[in-house]
Amino acid sequence: MNNPFFKNHGPFKIKDLFNDISFDKLDILGDNTILDIRDLVTSNKNHLTFFHSKKYNREASETKASYCVTYKNLINYLPNSCKAICVDNVLLTISQITSKFYPDSINDDFDNTVKEINQIKLENKIKHGHNVLIGENVQIGDNCFIGHNTIIEKNVIIGANCSIGSNVIIRNTIIENDVTILDGCIIGKKGFGFFPNKQKNLRYPHIGIVVIGENSEIGSGTTIDRGSMSNTIIGKNTFLDNQIHIAHNNKIGDNCIIAGQVGFAGSSNIGNNVMIGGQAGISGHLKIGNNVQIGGGSGVIRDIPDNSKVMGYPSKDLRKFLKEN
Amino acid sequence: MNNPFFKNHGPFKIKDLFNDISFDKLDILGDNTILDIRDLVTSNKNHLTFFHSKKYNREASETKASYCVTYKNLINYLPNSCKAICVDNVLLTISQITSKFYPDSINDDFDNTVKEINQIKLENKIKHGHNVLIGENVQIGDNCFIGHNTIIEKNVIIGANCSIGSNVIIRNTIIENDVTILDGCIIGKKGFGFFPNKQKNLRYPHIGIVVIGENSEIGSGTTIDRGSMSNTIIGKNTFLDNQIHIAHNNKIGDNCIIAGQVGFAGSSNIGNNVMIGGQAGISGHLKIGNNVQIGGGSGVIRDIPDNSKVMGYPSKDLRKFLKEN
Amino acid sequence: MNNPFFKNHGPFKIKDLFNDISFDKLDILGDNTILDIRDLVTSNKNHLTFFHSKKYNREASETKASYCVTYKNLINYLPNSCKAICVDNVLLTISQITSKFYPDSINDDFDNTVKEINQIKLENKIKHGHNVLIGENVQIGDNCFIGHNTIIEKNVIIGANCSIGSNVIIRNTIIENDVTILDGCIIGKKGFGFFPNKQKNLRYPHIGIVVIGENSEIGSGTTIDRGSMSNTIIGKNTFLDNQIHIAHNNKIGDNCIIAGQVGFAGSSNIGNNVMIGGQAGISGHLKIGNNVQIGGGSGVIRDIPDNSKVMGYPSKDLRKFLKEN
Repeated sequence: MNNPFFKNHGPFKIKDLFNDISFDKLDILGDNTILDIRDLVTSNKNHLTFFHSKKYNREASETKASYCVTYKNLINYLPNSCKAICVDNVLLTISQITSKFYPDSINDDFDNTVKEINQIKLENKIKHGHNVLIGENVQIGDNCFIGHNTIIEKNVIIGANCSIGSNVIIRNTIIENDVTILDGCIIGKKGFGFFPNKQKNLRYPHIGIVVIGENSEIGSGTTIDRGSMSNTIIGKNTFLDNQIHIAHNNKIGDNCIIAGQVGFAGSSNIGNNVMIGGQAGISGHLKIGNNVQIGGGSGVIRDIPDNSKVMGYPSKDLRKFLKEN
Repeated sequence: MNNPFFKNHGPFKIKDLFNDISFDKLDILGDNTILDIRDLVTSNKNHLTFFHSKKYNREASETKASYCVTYKNLINYLPNSCKAICVDNVLLTISQITSKFYPDSINDDFDNTVKEINQIKLENKIKHGHNVLIGENVQIGDNCFIGHNTIIEKNVIIGANCSIGSNVIIRNTIIENDVTILDGCIIGKKGFGFFPNKQKNLRYPHIGIVVIGENSEIGSGTTIDRGSMSNTIIGKNTFLDNQIHIAHNNKIGDNCIIAGQVGFAGSSNIGNNVMIGGQAGISGHLKIGNNVQIGGGSGVIRDIPDNSKVMGYPSKDLRKFLKEN
Repeated sequence: MNNPFFKNHGPFKIKDLFNDISFDKLDILGDNTILDIRDLVTSNKNHLTFFHSKKYNREASETKASYCVTYKNLINYLPNSCKAICVDNVLLTISQITSKFYPDSINDDFDNTVKEINQIKLENKIKHGHNVLIGENVQIGDNCFIGHNTIIEKNVIIGANCSIGSNVIIRNTIIENDVTILDGCIIGKKGFGFFPNKQKNLRYPHIGIVVIGENSEIGSGTTIDRGSMSNTIIGKNTFLDNQIHIAHNNKIGDNCIIAGQVGFAGSSNIGNNVMIGGQAGISGHLKIGNNVQIGGGSGVIRDIPDNSKVMGYPSKDLRKFLKEN
């Protein structure tokens, strides 16, 4: 992912990136310059990447990165063009290095770049309420509505014909055309990610953003966190009800219908045309297929193939659930 | 239901209402004028109504409406005074026609009629905070409190001695006397209702309102959506905890106690003196009797008779649930 | 508990406290003066306390209070220095008497003591957003951030290096150093406590506060209610995700990790290093040990010993849950 919003504070000499990190010198780190930190797929020459699970061995074998932080037992998957740097905890190390490249992505203090909307020059015709605040690096398309007390913090692109409600807070987000966001939503804040440490938890950087596809609707009081190393994505024409929580890195498809108080734990892929009943919960790192229907209150802890109907905690085939109950 | 807030853009000639809708000409549509669209019970002469399920056959047989949108297999329930108009999808057709009568009930863009409370003339003595906004067609009773940043959008009636917190948003709502609404509630917005369409979902009109009975209390961060064709109702002396979601058309009785994070899917009837534990979910279109107790975390997917105690997902008799676990 | 924020309107003559309450004159109430109402442990001479369950017999036997509201069957646990006053409903009576000592603790109307932050003199360097309101009796430490539209109502102490987001509302709360509170939280409001009465529910006083330990983080849209007779406590270095609800009197330990949409019903004790998955619910008056892991979606209705891993509704041993499913 090439993140559009966070300022890259690099380049760094490879040895400076690792000067406070212990690692196995499989290769002596030289004076080479690292331009950016990227995932396996989007890395190029002079980029640093990371590889922490055999699940990604195909992507690892094809990476164009010059360096890769990984585990000893994974180094053989890497191409010769990519030098392995073996550490005890890949994700912790990557978190520390990402913090050097993108120090602004760790904390989400309130945005002090905002100005009252009446004091800035907007390119397009916007109808707005009282006490609307707009941060730096914000674009708003033609014919949008922005409600009272809403804060469009820095790093937001809003398409045309969008209706943003009142008391909404948005940052680090791309909103496509014809999107409706109802009152009280909080979108684009850092996800709930950190390395537990009994002295003081170590927050990890969130350089991903939120993308909301065209014609979608986000219900009142919903929270959508931005991604850590990838983006959080809501597809096109997908409708979310009130008080939904979407954690970092989830990808939700097109034409989905998600009822009130549903929660997504993070990093799951939800297909197209998926319907989810109220209060259901979707665990992390799952793959939910296309045309899946998930009953209200379900707890989904395993992948679900296309065209399935499930219900229960943990969720199972709907007919089985109804027969057993 | 005779809705008090939405402007009727009729009357319309019956043939103009149906000029872009395909239907079976059981009766040739004439030049007759339709004054309003109503449900079976509240319709009168020169009103259009709808009848989509055999469940309502008694109400259909007694309707005073002049026209009724329905299905072929239901026409025999209608009285002779009511002409049937048969369509493929009653609710979709009614949605389209309601949109013609009440075009303002589909979208809930922020209310641009609001003014700062200091700039309007209020009849009664109100204590209010900073940055309070009041829309058109708002009445506020004597001795009320309205907190900071709260927005009373258009079409709201608030009784006497009410305490509204800060950061609250209300529209299309009647609040009776002595009601407490805590911080951050969003009340009276359109419900989560639409006809799924892969090109672009079709929102349906919400001409219902929210009614909150006297002495009731609504906890922080709660959302209560207004009804589609009927009202969403909270009874008298009913207390709701924080972060509850009440979807469109629910009717909740008097003296109910509903704990935090409970969700109601829509169009259910909840009796009086009902107690519901935290995080329970109530599916749509159910009838929950009087004096019912529902344990925390329960998922209610079937009707519950008076005086029952239930728990579980799906919920069952409480003693059975506890014995099995 | 000696509450730091609520003004004690005493002392009262003991007979004046009980002049409208029926009780058994096991001891004739004299002219003695009562300085305060306290729990069994923190009471001293000339304090009134209460004892309503045999669970607390050890504390009762050691209380230093001069008077104790209790039930007939419990009076023998009290020391001779403490005179028993027997009533039909201990908690209702205590609620009525607490209301006399602390009338300000019953209702949470918006705080009309607040001023815009630019109009008050702050001791420390604070970065703040637009439209920030600060109430009476508020202290804010050095190097804090306070976001837009945030309301720090009366009776709040905030330590150094804290980051408070936007649209946050706080009252009756002590926040230690290095705490992060994300957008839209509502902290310190009265809990969901009252005596049901079909004429009109009787709210009971909440003289407890909220305490949030150092290095902790509270996610967006979370609600934390203050305690009734004791405090609601979040430990040090404990991280809460979005849309969590923590009811009155819960004590949560240090180094806990609590995922999105979890709910706590009230008055439970949660140990240190506890991990709780998304949407889990913790019933009231439970004891959850140290190092406990609770799976997402679980419903916890019984105590959990140290070092356990549980999941399910109701929750059971994790391996058992997974095997059965």
